[in-house]
Amino acid sequence: MRSHSFGWALAGGALLVAALSAAVPSVPADEPIRPIEPAVVANPALVELGKQLFFDPRLSKSGFISCNSCHNLSLGGSDNLQTSIGHNWQRGPINSPTVLNSKLSVAQFWDGRAANLVEQAGGPIANPGEMAFTHQLAIDVLTSIPEYVDAFERVSGRREIDIEQVERAIAAFEETLVTPDSRFDHWLRGDVGALSTEELAGYGVFKESGCTMCHHGPAVGGTSFHKMGVKAPYVTDNPKQGRIEVTGDEFDRMRFKVPTLRNVELTYPYFHDGEAETLAEAVEVMARLQLGRELTTVENRQVVAFLRTLTGAQPSFDLPLLPPSSDRTPRPQPFQ
Amino acid sequence: MRSHSFGWALAGGALLVAALSAAVPSVPADEPIRPIEPAVVANPALVELGKQLFFDPRLSKSGFISCNSCHNLSLGGSDNLQTSIGHNWQRGPINSPTVLNSKLSVAQFWDGRAANLVEQAGGPIANPGEMAFTHQLAIDVLTSIPEYVDAFERVSGRREIDIEQVERAIAAFEETLVTPDSRFDHWLRGDVGALSTEELAGYGVFKESGCTMCHHGPAVGGTSFHKMGVKAPYVTDNPKQGRIEVTGDEFDRMRFKVPTLRNVELTYPYFHDGEAETLAEAVEVMARLQLGRELTTVENRQVVAFLRTLTGAQPSFDLPLLPPSSDRTPRPQPFQ
Repeated sequence: MRSHSFGWALAGGALLVAALSAAVPSVPADEPIRPIEPAVVANPALVELGKQLFFDPRLSKSGFISCNSCHNLSLGGSDNLQTSIGHNWQRGPINSPTVLNSKLSVAQFWDGRAANLVEQAGGPIANPGEMAFTHQLAIDVLTSIPEYVDAFERVSGRREIDIEQVERAIAAFEETLVTPDSRFDHWLRGDVGALSTEELAGYGVFKESGCTMCHHGPAVGGTSFHKMGVKAPYVTDNPKQGRIEVTGDEFDRMRFKVPTLRNVELTYPYFHDGEAETLAEAVEVMARLQLGRELTTVENRQVVAFLRTLTGAQPSFDLPLLPPSSDRTPRPQPFQ
Repeated sequence: MRSHSFGWALAGGALLVAALSAAVPSVPADEPIRPIEPAVVANPALVELGKQLFFDPRLSKSGFISCNSCHNLSLGGSDNLQTSIGHNWQRGPINSPTVLNSKLSVAQFWDGRAANLVEQAGGPIANPGEMAFTHQLAIDVLTSIPEYVDAFERVSGRREIDIEQVERAIAAFEETLVTPDSRFDHWLRGDVGALSTEELAGYGVFKESGCTMCHHGPAVGGTSFHKMGVKAPYVTDNPKQGRIEVTGDEFDRMRFKVPTLRNVELTYPYFHDGEAETLAEAVEVMARLQLGRELTTVENRQVVAFLRTLTGAQPSFDLPLLPPSSDRTPRPQPFQ
């Protein structure tokens, strides 16, 4: 269009702007929450490989635990347990965060110890309390499976597999796990009928109370670290101390990554310790401890109604089929 | 076609038979293995509900184990472990049989203690070593989830859920888990190029050695109980004694349901105790203990090559999305 004559471009440009406005209305600039954009898949073969790896329990010592065990994509990308179950039924130290929209986070894990999804992906594989494997053993397993070797060659040009390639593939799949098209996003884009009066009132309370100080942006969170227990200490038996475990800085004690509120109706229970079982409880605690506000019963109900509008279209794909082990694949060791 | 005139119908009928023969050639009557027929879905809503239940870990005490945990449809409907992992990481007593083509079995479980898939489906839910729940608690969970109540109403006309409905839905889904279109079935239907010379030779050895005495029919097994260790005792540390545990009849000691060999390349390790890690090992042991034959290295390789032709089209469907729990859903108890 820009190569047309100046006079035509002006007129055509004006028409184009009008047409775009009708199809995808602009989001008011002063709204602290932004819409989720659909995934753009740049490398389908890499995403497909990452999906298989995400579902493959052979990346664990037991052969029983996959990424999807604790980030279950049938359950909003979480496991809906207070804290997760690891190798040998170990009780995990922290609530499993949803993998949905995790690419929008400033860092990964509650304490932000991984800078991005690639750095994160290898962590649970080698964590003795989670998948309890080693990166070398995981590579030995994958290298013994001809279909995996072929798949890695297709995406990297090499038949040698290393852990960086595994992490890159899993991260590429995870980057597709976004949830656009929530009712709230429809409203943001100008569909005034997308939300009920109660839901809109809840959004009003959410903004006026100050929730959006932390919960903003497309993921409605995930962009910063904040202290759990601002107006009053957060009382918990959970020993995790947050970002101080990464930085060693006393300032970071009990500072955790602000979780995304996208799909929050699916990702119960809440908080890093999974202590809040319901949205109503989580909203009450957050308002009181973080903002020093006692919401009325009506306000709480309104905020919960608003939060439920943040559930987007869940990633939809065929259950991946995994290539069989070969005779030389190291066998899982669930009971050793 | 049948409403046409008699004279035309005769001619047309002959043409039709010829056309059908070309499209779907008849299977020679003397072949002991029969093709797998595609699934016919009579009640899609019931199958869809059963699929959700099959993938739902909330049918277990822990909220972590679903039917798919041990009958993983990414892994040939099995878990590829020697014996399965149950609640609290208990070591299961027996190798998890594949759920694929299980509707073709004369009975369910290795010892046949369930007459059919409906009877089978509720077993693992209430087995303290598997999902460790109770039927009543499973019903309490489902009844607390509005989307499940709606789904059960759609298929039963009632908003009350009972365990028979749950079993019926899971079984309806499992009945769709057939694997037609294996290369062997293509050969059976007349595609002479579908098998290699080695694979055909393996089928010859398989038949001549007597394997088909037990492994026949569409599932290549599953239709009878036979003694494990005919020509010589089967030595194992596994305490399971087979069908005698159902009948109390000494004749049934060490008699197990003959497993299906469909998709056998995916369902390692082998035998009720999962002691045979490779197909080559399983073939060697079976020939020696059941038939009193020592296969040559070449014969063994041929039979293994034939067995790999029994891998059919795996069930393909979207990963099911599960409805969220409600505020009144009983919470999972993984560590109690």
